[in-house]
Amino acid sequence: MDISSYFPIWDKLTPQQQRMVEDNLIRRQVSKGTVVHDGSADCSGLMLVRSGQLRAYLLSDEGREITLYRLFDMDICLFSASCVMQSVQFDIMIEAEKDSELWVIPPYIFQRLKNESAVMANYANDLMATRFSEVMWLMEQIMWKSFDKRLASFLLEEAVLEESNQLKITHETIGNHLGNPREVVTRMLRYFQSEGMVNLSRGAVEITDEKKLRTLAGA
Amino acid sequence: MDISSYFPIWDKLTPQQQRMVEDNLIRRQVSKGTVVHDGSADCSGLMLVRSGQLRAYLLSDEGREITLYRLFDMDICLFSASCVMQSVQFDIMIEAEKDSELWVIPPYIFQRLKNESAVMANYANDLMATRFSEVMWLMEQIMWKSFDKRLASFLLEEAVLEESNQLKITHETIGNHLGNPREVVTRMLRYFQSEGMVNLSRGAVEITDEKKLRTLAGA
Repeated sequence: MDISSYFPIWDKLTPQQQRMVEDNLIRRQVSKGTVVHDGSADCSGLMLVRSGQLRAYLLSDEGREITLYRLFDMDICLFSASCVMQSVQFDIMIEAEKDSELWVIPPYIFQRLKNESAVMANYANDLMATRFSEVMWLMEQIMWKSFDKRLASFLLEEAVLEESNQLKITHETIGNHLGNPREVVTRMLRYFQSEGMVNLSRGAVEITDEKKLRTLAGA
Repeated sequence: MDISSYFPIWDKLTPQQQRMVEDNLIRRQVSKGTVVHDGSADCSGLMLVRSGQLRAYLLSDEGREITLYRLFDMDICLFSASCVMQSVQFDIMIEAEKDSELWVIPPYIFQRLKNESAVMANYANDLMATRFSEVMWLMEQIMWKSFDKRLASFLLEEAVLEESNQLKITHETIGNHLGNPREVVTRMLRYFQSEGMVNLSRGAVEITDEKKLRTLAGA
């Protein structure tokens, strides 16, 4: 896996532009829990996920959180370079959810590429549209989908990501993903347990009836 | 007011590109209530607001609505050209909230400009980032701000747009802006009335204590 595979438009860059990216690439290893981008305070540049998992989230003044989207192998994190896009007037946080290996393209290199190359500028546009689409999907979920369905979907998604029906996750962390207070999560999980869909224990949620949970989520 | 004033980057386009835009500009007059863009069904192109007011909103399968943002004189509507941006994977509706006069740049002209010119591609990126910022602001409002404050802010904003404290608006329309059912709006407006902030009558809301409403909204 090399740098060219991150960019479907790689072949349309000039040899000089390709070399500029390759020569300025920074390798970065981050351990689980590291905040790799802190709103407007940081400007690392474009982050390419070589392995691991990143989570982009909103953080309120009161410390509440909601997960916007996640980034996996081969994804590019655009908003860690938001300083080169002045019209981006919002702050998001990005943290490593698993130990991750990143390649970073410094902001001034990204900016230069974008200014020189319509192909790169349009690709940046594509990346933004992709993230925008994820946020709009989330907006629809929040607006029109009830909390029980959102929680069921979240647990099923986690089980896929963790490759296990035994999830090591606290009610507070679930609340931070979904943007709801812990008590609301606890109440709904207890209801799920009474319906035989999950089994709760300290710091863990076990999915015991995946089919029933899936029916609830999909309905 | 001519076409160049819509694009801060106009002078950086070539004379050929400028002429291509000017020669292909379509004038469109729409009356209040017209849906000018219907999700993925339409692709009119870039819409430039010469006068009037557009509203971009989400529409759920069940017919519920929430206003995402509004466009005024000199604003450019990007998502009416979403067909030329494949990574835009969401459908929004755009309607004229007032009689409006538009200039439309056809999608194939916009696409050609974006492909030819890094300056135009970056400007499209700026436009998207601006709309993205508005949606993120809305997301924060929905997530962290209580409904009474959102409703108070909305009424104050409407009074500015309509240049009147006597708003001709139904509870249902307010609900469609804020993404809440009519009953929830009615209940809160009645509370506002009992607090002396508004006076309710058929199809109208009069702001009677702007200062108190402002304190509530800003808190």
